[in-house]
Amino acid sequence: MAPEYKLIYWPELPGRAEFIRLLFEEADVSYGDTGKGPPEEAVSAVTGIISPNEPPGSSNAPLLAPPVLQHGRLVLSQTANILLYLAPRLGLGPKDGDGLFRLNGIVLTLLDGFVNEVHETHHPIAVQEYYENQRDEARRRSKAFREQRLPKFMAFAQHLLEADSSGEGPWLYGGRLTYADLVLFQGIDGTSYAFPRTMKRLKESGKYDGVFRLYEAVKKRPRIAEYLASDRRAKYSTGIWRHYPELEEE
Amino acid sequence: MAPEYKLIYWPELPGRAEFIRLLFEEADVSYGDTGKGPPEEAVSAVTGIISPNEPPGSSNAPLLAPPVLQHGRLVLSQTANILLYLAPRLGLGPKDGDGLFRLNGIVLTLLDGFVNEVHETHHPIAVQEYYENQRDEARRRSKAFREQRLPKFMAFAQHLLEADSSGEGPWLYGGRLTYADLVLFQGIDGTSYAFPRTMKRLKESGKYDGVFRLYEAVKKRPRIAEYLASDRRAKYSTGIWRHYPELEEE
Repeated sequence: MAPEYKLIYWPELPGRAEFIRLLFEEADVSYGDTGKGPPEEAVSAVTGIISPNEPPGSSNAPLLAPPVLQHGRLVLSQTANILLYLAPRLGLGPKDGDGLFRLNGIVLTLLDGFVNEVHETHHPIAVQEYYENQRDEARRRSKAFREQRLPKFMAFAQHLLEADSSGEGPWLYGGRLTYADLVLFQGIDGTSYAFPRTMKRLKESGKYDGVFRLYEAVKKRPRIAEYLASDRRAKYSTGIWRHYPELEEE
Repeated sequence: MAPEYKLIYWPELPGRAEFIRLLFEEADVSYGDTGKGPPEEAVSAVTGIISPNEPPGSSNAPLLAPPVLQHGRLVLSQTANILLYLAPRLGLGPKDGDGLFRLNGIVLTLLDGFVNEVHETHHPIAVQEYYENQRDEARRRSKAFREQRLPKFMAFAQHLLEADSSGEGPWLYGGRLTYADLVLFQGIDGTSYAFPRTMKRLKESGKYDGVFRLYEAVKKRPRIAEYLASDRRAKYSTGIWRHYPELEEE
Protein backbone atom coordinates (compact mmCIF):
# COMPACT_ATOMS: atom_id res chain seq x y z
CA MET A 1 0.00 0.00 0.00
CA ALA A 2 1.30 3.43 -0.91
CA PRO A 3 2.13 5.64 2.07
CA GLU A 4 -0.45 8.25 3.00
CA TYR A 5 2.02 11.11 2.67
CA LYS A 6 4.23 11.81 -0.32
CA LEU A 7 7.14 14.22 -0.35
CA ILE A 8 8.29 15.65 -3.69
CA TYR A 9 11.85 16.93 -3.71
CA TRP A 10 15.11 17.00 -5.64
CA PRO A 11 17.26 13.87 -5.42
CA GLU A 12 20.41 13.33 -3.37
CA LEU A 13 20.32 16.38 -1.10
CA PRO A 14 19.06 16.99 2.40
CA GLY A 15 17.80 20.47 1.51
CA ARG A 16 14.60 21.96 2.83
CA ALA A 17 12.90 18.56 2.60
CA GLU A 18 15.10 17.34 5.43
CA PHE A 19 13.01 19.18 8.01
CA ILE A 20 9.92 17.33 6.81
CA ARG A 21 11.70 13.98 6.74
CA LEU A 22 12.78 14.41 10.36
CA LEU A 23 9.15 14.77 11.46
CA PHE A 24 8.14 11.57 9.70
CA GLU A 25 11.17 9.71 11.05
CA GLU A 26 10.64 10.81 14.65
CA ALA A 27 6.92 10.00 14.44
CA ASP A 28 7.64 6.64 12.78
CA VAL A 29 5.18 7.38 9.98
CA SER A 30 6.03 6.02 6.56
CA TYR A 31 6.20 8.47 3.67
CA GLY A 32 6.90 8.43 -0.02
CA ASP A 33 9.91 10.50 -1.03
CA THR A 34 10.86 11.15 -4.64
CA GLY A 35 14.26 12.29 -3.36
CA LYS A 36 15.09 8.68 -2.51
CA GLY A 37 14.07 7.08 -5.81
CA PRO A 38 15.83 7.24 -9.17
CA PRO A 39 17.25 10.75 -9.56
CA GLU A 40 15.73 11.35 -12.99
CA GLU A 41 12.27 10.47 -11.65
CA ALA A 42 12.73 12.89 -8.73
CA VAL A 43 13.71 15.69 -11.08
CA SER A 44 10.74 15.07 -13.32
CA ALA A 45 8.37 14.88 -10.33
CA VAL A 46 9.64 18.26 -9.12
CA THR A 47 9.69 20.00 -12.49
CA GLY A 48 6.26 18.54 -13.26
CA ILE A 49 4.62 19.93 -10.16
CA ILE A 50 6.25 23.36 -10.19
CA SER A 51 5.78 23.79 -13.91
CA PRO A 52 4.06 27.06 -14.79
CA ASN A 53 2.75 25.24 -17.84
CA GLU A 54 0.34 23.12 -15.87
CA PRO A 55 -3.10 23.77 -17.36
CA PRO A 56 -5.09 26.52 -15.63
CA GLY A 57 -8.08 25.16 -13.79
CA SER A 58 -6.32 21.99 -12.72
CA SER A 59 -6.98 20.94 -9.15
CA ASN A 60 -3.40 21.56 -8.08
CA ALA A 61 -2.34 25.05 -7.18
CA PRO A 62 0.66 26.28 -9.11
CA LEU A 63 3.71 25.99 -6.91
CA LEU A 64 6.94 27.93 -7.18
CA ALA A 65 9.43 25.57 -5.59
CA PRO A 66 9.81 22.29 -3.70
CA PRO A 67 9.48 20.75 -1.15
CA VAL A 68 5.90 19.79 -1.92
CA LEU A 69 3.75 17.53 0.23
CA GLN A 70 0.86 15.52 -1.18
CA HIS A 71 -1.68 14.24 1.31
CA GLY A 72 -4.78 12.86 -0.35
CA ARG A 73 -6.03 15.59 -2.68
CA LEU A 74 -4.18 18.33 -0.81
CA VAL A 75 -0.96 19.64 -2.33
CA LEU A 76 1.09 21.98 -0.13
CA SER A 77 4.28 23.93 -0.62
CA GLN A 78 6.55 26.06 1.56
CA THR A 79 8.55 24.23 4.23
CA ALA A 80 7.12 26.10 7.23
CA ASN A 81 3.60 25.54 5.93
CA ILE A 82 4.10 21.81 5.43
CA LEU A 83 5.62 21.49 8.92
CA LEU A 84 2.70 23.39 10.46
CA TYR A 85 0.26 21.06 8.72
CA LEU A 86 2.09 17.90 9.77
CA ALA A 87 3.17 18.66 13.34
CA PRO A 88 -0.22 18.25 15.08
CA ARG A 89 -1.05 15.23 12.91
CA LEU A 90 2.21 13.53 13.86
CA GLY A 91 2.05 14.35 17.57
CA LEU A 92 4.84 16.90 17.34
CA GLY A 93 2.89 20.03 18.22
CA PRO A 94 -0.33 21.10 19.91
CA LYS A 95 -3.51 20.28 17.99
CA ASP A 96 -4.57 23.90 17.87
CA GLY A 97 -4.70 27.10 19.83
CA ASP A 98 -2.11 29.67 20.64
CA GLY A 99 0.76 27.21 21.14
CA LEU A 100 0.84 26.30 17.49
CA PHE A 101 1.18 29.95 16.49
CA ARG A 102 4.00 30.41 18.99
CA LEU A 103 5.75 27.40 17.47
CA ASN A 104 5.15 28.62 13.92
CA GLY A 105 6.75 31.97 14.82
CA ILE A 106 9.77 30.18 16.28
CA VAL A 107 10.11 27.88 13.27
CA LEU A 108 9.86 30.71 10.73
CA THR A 109 12.62 32.53 12.59
CA LEU A 110 14.86 29.44 12.74
CA LEU A 111 14.35 28.81 9.01
CA ASP A 112 15.31 32.43 8.28
CA GLY A 113 18.58 32.12 10.18
CA PHE A 114 19.74 28.57 9.59
CA VAL A 115 18.42 28.02 6.06
CA ASN A 116 17.61 31.18 4.10
CA GLU A 117 20.55 33.21 5.36
CA VAL A 118 22.93 30.26 4.99
CA HIS A 119 21.89 29.90 1.37
CA GLU A 120 22.57 33.59 0.82
CA THR A 121 26.16 33.14 2.05
CA HIS A 122 27.12 31.29 -1.14
CA HIS A 123 24.63 32.95 -3.53
CA PRO A 124 24.43 36.60 -2.50
CA ILE A 125 24.06 37.95 -6.04
CA ALA A 126 21.99 35.54 -8.11
CA VAL A 127 20.54 32.16 -7.26
CA GLN A 128 20.72 31.06 -10.89
CA GLU A 129 24.41 31.92 -11.35
CA TYR A 130 27.38 29.72 -10.47
CA TYR A 131 28.97 30.17 -7.08
CA GLU A 132 32.30 30.82 -8.77
CA ASN A 133 30.85 33.97 -10.35
CA GLN A 134 29.94 35.45 -6.97
CA ARG A 135 32.73 34.15 -4.76
CA ASP A 136 34.08 37.53 -3.68
CA GLU A 137 30.63 38.70 -2.69
CA ALA A 138 30.05 35.37 -0.95
CA ARG A 139 33.16 36.01 1.15
CA ARG A 140 31.79 39.32 2.36
CA ARG A 141 28.31 37.98 2.96
CA SER A 142 29.73 34.99 4.86
CA LYS A 143 31.77 37.25 7.11
CA ALA A 144 28.65 39.23 8.01
CA PHE A 145 26.77 35.98 8.57
CA ARG A 146 29.45 34.40 10.77
CA GLU A 147 30.11 37.49 12.85
CA GLN A 148 26.71 39.07 13.18
CA ARG A 149 23.74 37.16 11.87
CA LEU A 150 24.59 33.65 13.11
CA PRO A 151 25.31 34.75 16.71
CA LYS A 152 22.02 36.67 16.63
CA PHE A 153 20.03 33.57 15.69
CA MET A 154 21.98 31.40 18.14
CA ALA A 155 21.19 33.90 20.90
CA PHE A 156 17.53 33.85 19.91
CA ALA A 157 17.37 30.07 20.31
CA GLN A 158 19.37 30.11 23.53
CA HIS A 159 17.16 32.79 24.97
CA LEU A 160 14.03 30.84 24.06
CA LEU A 161 15.44 27.84 25.92
CA GLU A 162 16.18 29.93 29.00
CA ALA A 163 12.78 31.63 28.89
CA ASP A 164 10.79 28.40 28.76
CA SER A 165 10.17 27.48 32.36
CA SER A 166 7.21 25.28 31.59
CA GLY A 167 8.82 21.88 31.87
CA GLU A 168 11.84 19.65 32.16
CA GLY A 169 14.21 18.73 29.43
CA PRO A 170 16.19 20.52 26.79
CA TRP A 171 13.24 21.47 24.57
CA LEU A 172 12.23 24.80 23.05
CA TYR A 173 8.58 24.89 23.92
CA GLY A 174 6.29 23.52 26.61
CA GLY A 175 8.74 21.10 28.22
CA ARG A 176 8.37 18.43 25.56
CA LEU A 177 9.79 17.60 22.15
CA THR A 178 8.06 19.47 19.33
CA TYR A 179 8.78 19.93 15.66
CA ALA A 180 10.58 23.19 16.48
CA ASP A 181 13.30 21.12 18.19
CA LEU A 182 13.74 19.01 15.05
CA VAL A 183 14.01 22.20 13.00
CA LEU A 184 16.69 23.63 15.29
CA PHE A 185 18.57 20.33 15.21
CA GLN A 186 18.70 20.29 11.41
CA GLY A 187 19.61 23.97 11.26
CA ILE A 188 22.55 23.46 13.62
CA ASP A 189 23.62 20.28 11.84
CA GLY A 190 23.61 21.89 8.39
CA THR A 191 25.26 25.09 9.56
CA SER A 192 27.96 23.05 11.33
CA TYR A 193 28.69 21.30 8.04
CA ALA A 194 28.96 24.63 6.21
CA PHE A 195 30.89 26.55 8.89
CA PRO A 196 32.57 23.97 11.16
CA ARG A 197 35.21 26.33 12.57
CA THR A 198 32.72 29.05 13.37
CA MET A 199 30.31 26.63 15.01
CA LYS A 200 33.13 25.08 17.04
CA ARG A 201 34.07 28.54 18.31
CA LEU A 202 30.46 29.35 19.17
CA LYS A 203 30.16 26.05 21.03
CA GLU A 204 33.33 26.69 22.99
CA SER A 205 32.17 30.17 23.93
CA GLY A 206 29.75 28.57 26.38
CA LYS A 207 27.07 31.09 25.44
CA TYR A 208 24.81 28.64 23.67
CA ASP A 209 25.00 25.55 25.85
CA GLY A 210 21.26 25.01 25.74
CA VAL A 211 21.27 24.99 21.94
CA PHE A 212 24.04 22.39 21.74
CA ARG A 213 22.40 20.32 24.49
CA LEU A 214 19.18 20.25 22.48
CA TYR A 215 21.14 19.31 19.37
CA GLU A 216 22.69 16.31 21.13
CA ALA A 217 19.36 15.30 22.68
CA VAL A 218 17.64 15.19 19.28
CA LYS A 219 20.55 13.31 17.76
CA LYS A 220 20.17 10.58 20.39
CA ARG A 221 16.44 10.05 19.96
CA PRO A 222 16.27 6.38 18.97
CA ARG A 223 14.42 6.86 15.67
CA ILE A 224 16.46 9.91 14.71
CA ALA A 225 19.71 8.10 15.50
CA GLU A 226 18.59 5.14 13.39
CA TYR A 227 17.64 7.48 10.55
CA LEU A 228 20.90 9.41 10.65
CA ALA A 229 22.83 6.14 10.43
CA SER A 230 20.73 4.84 7.54
CA ASP A 231 21.21 5.44 3.83
CA ARG A 232 17.95 7.38 3.81
CA ARG A 233 19.88 10.33 5.25
CA ALA A 234 21.39 12.16 2.27
CA LYS A 235 24.90 13.56 2.45
CA TYR A 236 25.48 17.29 2.32
CA SER A 237 26.82 18.43 -1.03
CA THR A 238 25.79 21.37 -3.21
CA GLY A 239 22.46 22.31 -1.69
CA ILE A 240 21.69 24.91 0.94
CA TRP A 241 24.45 23.86 3.33
CA ARG A 242 27.75 23.81 1.44
CA HIS A 243 31.26 23.79 2.74
CA TYR A 244 33.59 26.21 0.99
CA PRO A 245 36.75 26.66 3.07
CA GLU A 246 37.26 30.18 1.69
CA LEU A 247 33.97 31.28 3.27
CA GLU A 248 35.06 30.19 6.73
CA GLU A 249 36.84 32.25 9.37
CA GLU A 250 40.64 32.21 9.64
CA MET B 1 -11.09 51.61 25.52
CA ALA B 2 -7.82 50.27 24.18
CA PRO B 3 -8.14 48.29 20.94
CA GLU B 4 -8.11 44.51 21.26
CA TYR B 5 -5.14 44.16 18.92
CA LYS B 6 -1.83 45.96 19.19
CA LEU B 7 0.81 46.11 16.50
CA ILE B 8 4.41 46.86 17.50
CA TYR B 9 6.57 48.19 14.72
CA TRP B 10 9.17 50.79 13.77
CA PRO B 11 7.87 54.32 13.15
CA GLU B 12 7.32 56.05 9.82
CA LEU B 13 7.68 53.13 7.43
CA PRO B 14 5.22 50.81 5.74
CA GLY B 15 7.54 47.82 6.13
CA ARG B 16 6.37 44.33 6.93
CA ALA B 17 3.74 45.75 9.30
CA GLU B 18 1.87 47.13 6.29
CA PHE B 19 0.50 43.69 5.43
CA ILE B 20 -1.02 43.44 8.89
CA ARG B 21 -2.41 46.96 8.76
CA LEU B 22 -4.18 46.21 5.48
CA LEU B 23 -6.07 43.32 7.10
CA PHE B 24 -7.29 45.52 9.95
CA GLU B 25 -8.22 48.32 7.57
CA GLU B 26 -10.16 46.08 5.17
CA ALA B 27 -11.95 44.39 8.09
CA ASP B 28 -12.67 47.74 9.74
CA VAL B 29 -11.24 46.52 13.05
CA SER B 30 -9.46 49.09 15.19
CA TYR B 31 -5.88 48.36 16.25
CA GLY B 32 -3.16 49.96 18.25
CA ASP B 33 -0.04 50.70 16.22
CA THR B 34 3.18 51.96 17.79
CA GLY B 35 4.31 52.92 14.28
CA LYS B 36 1.77 55.72 14.29
CA GLY B 37 2.61 57.24 17.68
CA PRO B 38 5.66 59.29 18.68
CA PRO B 39 8.69 57.80 16.88
CA GLU B 40 10.80 57.49 20.03
CA GLU B 41 8.02 55.50 21.73
CA ALA B 42 7.76 53.18 18.73
CA VAL B 43 11.49 52.56 18.77
CA SER B 44 11.49 51.80 22.46
CA ALA B 45 8.45 49.51 22.13
CA VAL B 46 10.24 47.53 19.42
CA THR B 47 13.64 47.37 21.09
CA GLY B 48 11.93 46.48 24.37
CA ILE B 49 10.10 43.48 23.00
CA ILE B 50 12.90 42.09 20.86
CA SER B 51 15.49 42.62 23.54
CA PRO B 52 17.47 39.49 24.33
CA ASN B 53 17.84 40.93 27.81
CA GLU B 54 14.26 40.28 28.74
CA PRO B 55 14.34 38.11 31.86
CA PRO B 56 14.18 34.37 31.19
CA GLY B 57 10.92 32.87 32.38
CA SER B 58 8.88 35.90 31.44
CA SER B 59 5.57 35.06 29.82
CA ASN B 60 6.62 36.58 26.52
CA ALA B 61 8.66 34.51 24.12
CA PRO B 62 11.87 36.17 23.02
CA LEU B 63 11.38 37.60 19.56
CA LEU B 64 14.00 38.33 16.97
CA ALA B 65 12.38 41.10 14.95
CA PRO B 66 9.18 43.09 14.45
CA PRO B 67 6.37 43.18 13.42
CA VAL B 68 4.93 41.85 16.67
CA LEU B 69 1.22 41.43 17.40
CA GLN B 70 -0.18 41.48 20.90
CA HIS B 71 -3.63 39.99 21.36
CA GLY B 72 -4.55 39.52 25.00
CA ARG B 73 -1.73 37.53 26.53
CA LEU B 74 -0.57 36.19 23.20
CA VAL B 75 2.51 37.75 21.63
CA LEU B 76 3.27 36.71 18.06
CA SER B 77 6.04 37.48 15.63
CA GLN B 78 6.77 36.74 11.97
CA THR B 79 4.57 38.46 9.40
CA ALA B 80 3.19 35.30 7.78
CA ASN B 81 2.36 33.87 11.21
CA ILE B 82 0.54 37.00 12.35
CA LEU B 83 -1.44 37.10 9.11
CA LEU B 84 -2.38 33.43 9.46
CA TYR B 85 -3.61 34.09 12.99
CA LEU B 86 -5.62 37.17 12.03
CA ALA B 87 -7.15 36.20 8.68
CA PRO B 88 -9.87 33.81 9.94
CA ARG B 89 -10.62 36.11 12.89
CA LEU B 90 -11.10 39.09 10.56
CA GLY B 91 -13.16 37.26 7.94
CA LEU B 92 -10.33 37.27 5.42
CA GLY B 93 -9.68 33.54 5.19
CA PRO B 94 -11.38 30.22 5.91
CA LYS B 95 -11.80 29.37 9.60
CA ASP B 96 -9.83 26.17 9.29
CA GLY B 97 -9.21 23.24 7.04
CA ASP B 98 -7.15 22.78 3.96
CA GLY B 99 -7.96 26.17 2.44
CA LEU B 100 -6.03 28.01 5.12
CA PHE B 101 -2.90 25.94 4.42
CA ARG B 102 -3.25 26.62 0.70
CA LEU B 103 -3.46 30.34 1.46
CA ASN B 104 -0.51 30.19 3.86
CA GLY B 105 1.61 28.54 1.15
CA ILE B 106 0.63 31.26 -1.32
CA VAL B 107 1.34 34.05 1.17
CA LEU B 108 4.75 32.67 2.16
CA THR B 109 5.69 32.54 -1.54
CA LEU B 110 4.48 36.11 -2.18
CA LEU B 111 6.41 37.39 0.85
CA ASP B 112 9.56 35.66 -0.43
CA GLY B 113 9.31 37.34 -3.81
CA PHE B 114 7.91 40.78 -3.11
CA VAL B 115 9.45 41.43 0.31
CA ASN B 116 12.46 39.28 1.19
CA GLU B 117 14.01 39.31 -2.28
CA VAL B 118 13.30 43.02 -2.71
CA HIS B 119 15.12 43.75 0.52
CA GLU B 120 18.09 41.73 -0.72
CA THR B 121 18.34 43.94 -3.84
CA HIS B 122 19.68 46.85 -1.78
CA HIS B 123 21.39 44.84 0.97
CA PRO B 124 22.93 41.78 -0.69
CA ILE B 125 26.04 41.71 1.50
CA ALA B 126 25.13 42.75 5.03
CA VAL B 127 21.87 43.98 6.48
CA GLN B 128 23.69 46.01 9.14
CA GLU B 129 25.96 47.87 6.67
CA TYR B 130 25.09 51.04 4.76
CA TYR B 131 23.69 50.65 1.28
CA GLU B 132 26.50 52.84 -0.06
CA ASN B 133 29.01 50.18 1.00
CA GLN B 134 27.32 47.50 -1.09
CA ARG B 135 26.05 49.50 -4.04
CA ASP B 136 27.96 47.61 -6.74
CA GLU B 137 26.74 44.29 -5.42
CA ALA B 138 23.24 45.75 -5.15
CA ARG B 139 23.39 46.62 -8.87
CA ARG B 140 24.16 43.01 -9.77
CA ARG B 141 21.57 41.57 -7.40
CA SER B 142 18.94 43.99 -8.70
CA LYS B 143 19.63 43.00 -12.29
CA ALA B 144 19.08 39.34 -11.39
CA PHE B 145 15.94 40.27 -9.48
CA ARG B 146 14.48 42.41 -12.28
CA GLU B 147 15.28 40.00 -15.07
CA GLN B 148 14.76 36.61 -13.47
CA ARG B 149 13.29 36.51 -10.00
CA LEU B 150 10.56 39.15 -10.31
CA PRO B 151 9.10 37.72 -13.55
CA LYS B 152 9.12 34.29 -11.87
CA PHE B 153 7.05 35.52 -8.93
CA MET B 154 4.76 37.53 -11.21
CA ALA B 155 4.17 34.41 -13.29
CA PHE B 156 3.43 32.43 -10.13
CA ALA B 157 0.71 34.90 -9.12
CA GLN B 158 -0.70 35.14 -12.64
CA HIS B 159 -0.80 31.39 -12.93
CA LEU B 160 -2.60 31.08 -9.61
CA LEU B 161 -5.22 33.53 -10.87
CA GLU B 162 -5.70 31.56 -14.07
CA ALA B 163 -5.84 28.24 -12.23
CA ASP B 164 -8.53 29.30 -9.80
CA SER B 165 -11.76 28.44 -11.51
CA SER B 166 -13.78 28.38 -8.30
CA GLY B 167 -15.51 31.73 -8.53
CA GLU B 168 -15.97 35.11 -10.07
CA GLY B 169 -13.82 38.15 -9.57
CA PRO B 170 -10.14 38.95 -9.69
CA TRP B 171 -9.17 37.07 -6.51
CA LEU B 172 -6.41 34.54 -5.85
CA TYR B 173 -8.34 31.90 -3.99
CA GLY B 174 -11.89 30.59 -3.78
CA GLY B 175 -13.58 33.36 -5.77
CA ARG B 176 -13.60 35.85 -2.92
CA LEU B 177 -11.28 38.40 -1.35
CA THR B 178 -8.84 36.85 1.13
CA TYR B 179 -5.79 38.12 2.94
CA ALA B 180 -3.60 36.69 0.16
CA ASP B 181 -5.04 39.34 -2.17
CA LEU B 182 -4.08 42.09 0.27
CA VAL B 183 -0.58 40.63 0.47
CA LEU B 184 -0.22 40.58 -3.31
CA PHE B 185 -1.55 44.15 -3.50
CA GLN B 186 1.05 45.43 -1.05
CA GLY B 187 3.83 43.44 -2.71
CA ILE B 188 3.01 44.95 -6.12
CA ASP B 189 2.62 48.42 -4.66
CA GLY B 190 5.97 48.34 -2.85
CA THR B 191 7.82 46.75 -5.76
CA SER B 192 6.35 49.36 -8.13
CA TYR B 193 7.75 52.08 -5.88
CA ALA B 194 11.19 50.46 -5.88
CA PHE B 195 11.32 49.48 -9.56
CA PRO B 196 8.79 51.66 -11.41
CA ARG B 197 10.32 51.23 -14.87
CA THR B 198 10.56 47.46 -14.56
CA MET B 199 7.01 47.15 -13.28
CA LYS B 200 5.72 49.40 -16.07
CA ARG B 201 7.41 47.16 -18.62
CA LEU B 202 5.97 44.03 -17.00
CA LYS B 203 2.51 45.59 -17.02
CA GLU B 204 2.78 46.55 -20.68
CA SER B 205 3.92 43.06 -21.59
CA GLY B 206 0.34 41.90 -21.10
CA LYS B 207 1.54 38.72 -19.44
CA TYR B 208 0.35 39.57 -15.95
CA ASP B 209 -3.01 41.22 -16.58
CA GLY B 210 -4.69 39.28 -13.80
CA VAL B 211 -2.13 40.47 -11.27
CA PHE B 212 -2.58 44.13 -12.20
CA ARG B 213 -6.38 43.71 -12.29
CA LEU B 214 -6.28 42.34 -8.75
CA TYR B 215 -4.02 45.21 -7.71
CA GLU B 216 -6.53 47.78 -9.00
CA ALA B 217 -9.47 45.92 -7.47
CA VAL B 218 -7.88 45.95 -3.99
CA LYS B 219 -6.95 49.62 -4.37
CA LYS B 220 -10.60 50.48 -5.03
CA ARG B 221 -12.06 48.63 -2.05
CA PRO B 222 -13.77 51.46 -0.14
CA ARG B 223 -11.93 50.97 3.16
CA ILE B 224 -8.58 50.38 1.47
CA ALA B 225 -9.03 53.49 -0.69
CA GLU B 226 -9.90 55.52 2.39
CA TYR B 227 -6.84 54.14 4.22
CA LEU B 228 -4.45 54.80 1.33
CA ALA B 229 -5.65 58.40 1.18
CA SER B 230 -5.30 58.91 4.94
CA ASP B 231 -2.25 59.95 6.90
CA ARG B 232 -2.23 56.48 8.52
CA ARG B 233 -0.61 55.18 5.34
CA ALA B 234 3.13 55.75 5.73
CA LYS B 235 5.22 56.93 2.81
CA TYR B 236 7.88 54.67 1.36
CA SER B 237 11.38 55.76 2.33
CA THR B 238 14.33 53.69 3.55
CA GLY B 239 12.64 50.44 4.52
CA ILE B 240 12.20 47.28 2.48
CA TRP B 241 10.95 49.03 -0.65
CA ARG B 242 13.44 51.75 -1.62
CA HIS B 243 13.88 53.60 -4.86
CA TYR B 244 17.47 53.88 -6.02
CA PRO B 245 17.55 54.92 -9.70
CA GLU B 246 20.88 53.17 -10.20
CA LEU B 247 19.27 49.81 -9.37
CA GLU B 248 16.66 50.20 -12.08
CA GLU B 249 16.86 49.03 -15.67
CA GLU B 250 18.08 51.39 -18.42
